[in-house]
Amino acid sequence: MTSISASPTKLLHHRQLFPGLANKAYFNYGGQGPMPQTGLDAISEAQAYIQQVGPFGTEVNSWIIQETKAVRNAIGSELSVPPETITLTEDVTVGCNIAMWGLEWQAGDHILLSDCEHPGIIATAQEIGRRFGVELTTCPLMATLNEGDPVEVIAQHLRPKTRLVILSHVLWNTGQVLPIDKIAELCISKSVKLLIDAAQSVGLLPLNLTELKADFYAFTGHKWLCGPGGTGGLYVRPEVRESLKPTFIGWRGVTLDSKGKPVDWQSDGQRYEVATSNYPLYTGLREAIATHQQWGTPQERIEQICRNSEYLWRQLQVLADIKCLRTSPPESGLVSFQLTNQTPNPSRQLVMFLESQKLLTRTIADPDCVRACVHYLTLESEIDELVEGIQRFVDTHRG
Amino acid sequence: MTSISASPTKLLHHRQLFPGLANKAYFNYGGQGPMPQTGLDAISEAQAYIQQVGPFGTEVNSWIIQETKAVRNAIGSELSVPPETITLTEDVTVGCNIAMWGLEWQAGDHILLSDCEHPGIIATAQEIGRRFGVELTTCPLMATLNEGDPVEVIAQHLRPKTRLVILSHVLWNTGQVLPIDKIAELCISKSVKLLIDAAQSVGLLPLNLTELKADFYAFTGHKWLCGPGGTGGLYVRPEVRESLKPTFIGWRGVTLDSKGKPVDWQSDGQRYEVATSNYPLYTGLREAIATHQQWGTPQERIEQICRNSEYLWRQLQVLADIKCLRTSPPESGLVSFQLTNQTPNPSRQLVMFLESQKLLTRTIADPDCVRACVHYLTLESEIDELVEGIQRFVDTHRG
Repeated sequence: MTSISASPTKLLHHRQLFPGLANKAYFNYGGQGPMPQTGLDAISEAQAYIQQVGPFGTEVNSWIIQETKAVRNAIGSELSVPPETITLTEDVTVGCNIAMWGLEWQAGDHILLSDCEHPGIIATAQEIGRRFGVELTTCPLMATLNEGDPVEVIAQHLRPKTRLVILSHVLWNTGQVLPIDKIAELCISKSVKLLIDAAQSVGLLPLNLTELKADFYAFTGHKWLCGPGGTGGLYVRPEVRESLKPTFIGWRGVTLDSKGKPVDWQSDGQRYEVATSNYPLYTGLREAIATHQQWGTPQERIEQICRNSEYLWRQLQVLADIKCLRTSPPESGLVSFQLTNQTPNPSRQLVMFLESQKLLTRTIADPDCVRACVHYLTLESEIDELVEGIQRFVDTHRG
Repeated sequence: MTSISASPTKLLHHRQLFPGLANKAYFNYGGQGPMPQTGLDAISEAQAYIQQVGPFGTEVNSWIIQETKAVRNAIGSELSVPPETITLTEDVTVGCNIAMWGLEWQAGDHILLSDCEHPGIIATAQEIGRRFGVELTTCPLMATLNEGDPVEVIAQHLRPKTRLVILSHVLWNTGQVLPIDKIAELCISKSVKLLIDAAQSVGLLPLNLTELKADFYAFTGHKWLCGPGGTGGLYVRPEVRESLKPTFIGWRGVTLDSKGKPVDWQSDGQRYEVATSNYPLYTGLREAIATHQQWGTPQERIEQICRNSEYLWRQLQVLADIKCLRTSPPESGLVSFQLTNQTPNPSRQLVMFLESQKLLTRTIADPDCVRACVHYLTLESEIDELVEGIQRFVDTHRG
């Protein structure tokens, strides 16, 4: 609680790196994080560099190899894994798709999802179900936010034919943090693969994926890491790499013979990468990661995040007409709450009102609620402004 | 030949929009096109705008919807198709993968490829073959560069079980332009689907995809269109859309019910899009397309390109120790040639030498050759410099 990272002066100074934080109070880190100016500048400079020496030639190609290596190193250092376990993707959903389509499905196989997964992942599972005769079921984890044991619920829903369990590490609707280490242990003991949608956990939780033992861990660069949109990645546990086949395939994933014909997959995570990306975005993501590391360790960041989410939660708890989904302080930076008065479509009304006051939050459809995210970058004064904004809305709309 | 677009003064003025053309003679348009400064600026401005109003909120979301619509319109206008037939992808290879994995394969089905396809596409076809028991064969189109009829060769290689033919519109190694209209007619008559790898044709050839009648036409924004890396697209003929299922799936491709659960595919090409991209790149691509349209029509551009490629080809024809693959003037902007002297690894040696002289070309593995691309942006003086550079290399390395 007394670490240098928590120093308000240091934070005010650090926040000046983020132009997106200057003109508003921002609570949508779980949607997209603001980028540091150094990251924006790095992207522009890299785009200009490519024009200067290329845009296509051996010098640019060397730079691309170096930049992709550097961003894999940066990601590896955040997730405590060797860089060769990392596949670079456009976003978290592509990473989930690589894992889901890369298993060799047999009719009768079973996929278990939680009831809090993102619609894109549900739709992918449904299409796999339709194409291969794979059965899908969901297990009720939403109800374990305040009581009950998600590990037990999952254990009860596994079947002899279950081949894949798909869960978010941090549930995007309620902010609950699932005990992935215990769930991974359970899955390994049952020879079931585990795919984690890490959209809300990478950049938020301190992570050691080697110890966590999830088989597939898909994440995005543009949320809690505050990197550019269009960057993400997938960690594949080295022990399961050979059993996960590439699906969408391109020149980046294969090795070639002297006639330029494909002969094998790349030996590392690059085997699941496809073709040309906007490489300067990797430079931007690397800068964003370096910016967080300059402020503090992953542990210092999560402590600050939880201080902030508890501060917000405590104030919301005492507001009239507001009900937090959590009955105890949040475990993450996501704070979800509902309006209990009788306004029609209250969540959307509130979010629109708050955005007009430069207070950025979002609605969630299930459960119907408003989600406010706090990062280590969030100021107590921003939280105070948000609470005042909510109070004003509630006062105006009281029946 | 006397159009205003061909005016040298106008071209010199137009070229000043492209910073990448200022410090070198550039012949790698088929690898990556240089971007106009307006496109680079548009990307930076869009990134800054997103930070200013978001990066996540209802105002940013409206802007994203507007920008994706605008880029789909711009692409539609270049390809003479309705914008709703266009899927936005990261690159041409992703577009090919969407088409290849989206057909419902049965064991025993057959895929026919030409012998000039890109390694990523070959590897994808091989993996589909392995997973579903689909047979692959190639037909020898490389040999039809100077004589013979590719349509006849393809017709001879179709089988009763052929379900998909995969061809490049412009062969990336030899620069040959395939008669896709006739091939599409043949495929339709045999109820065979036709996927075109348009990496080298979009931005080069005048195109009317509605008239061309290929089922799937996958392209990239970063080559002849001179847009940013990380942008591309796929045209799906409306008549076959319902038979092509989405494979990699995310929130962009589905419609949701009031609980946020997926209920159907988007009705248009967006159904094959996945999740968050770097949307400012779309703004950059749109600017690049507008820049070309300002200079001239697609017809004016191809005429200038063919004037340039013929000018290069005629000079190479008379150089000692150089053999052009084509025995008549090229039909496209790709000019491929071989060194006939005894230097070890001559193509790579020449490309490295030329790059040291600020003359950017590339090697091709099969057939072993050097490829120089000319765009409408190319100056006769650049071509003269290239030919002089090749001459110097040949003189130095003569045995």
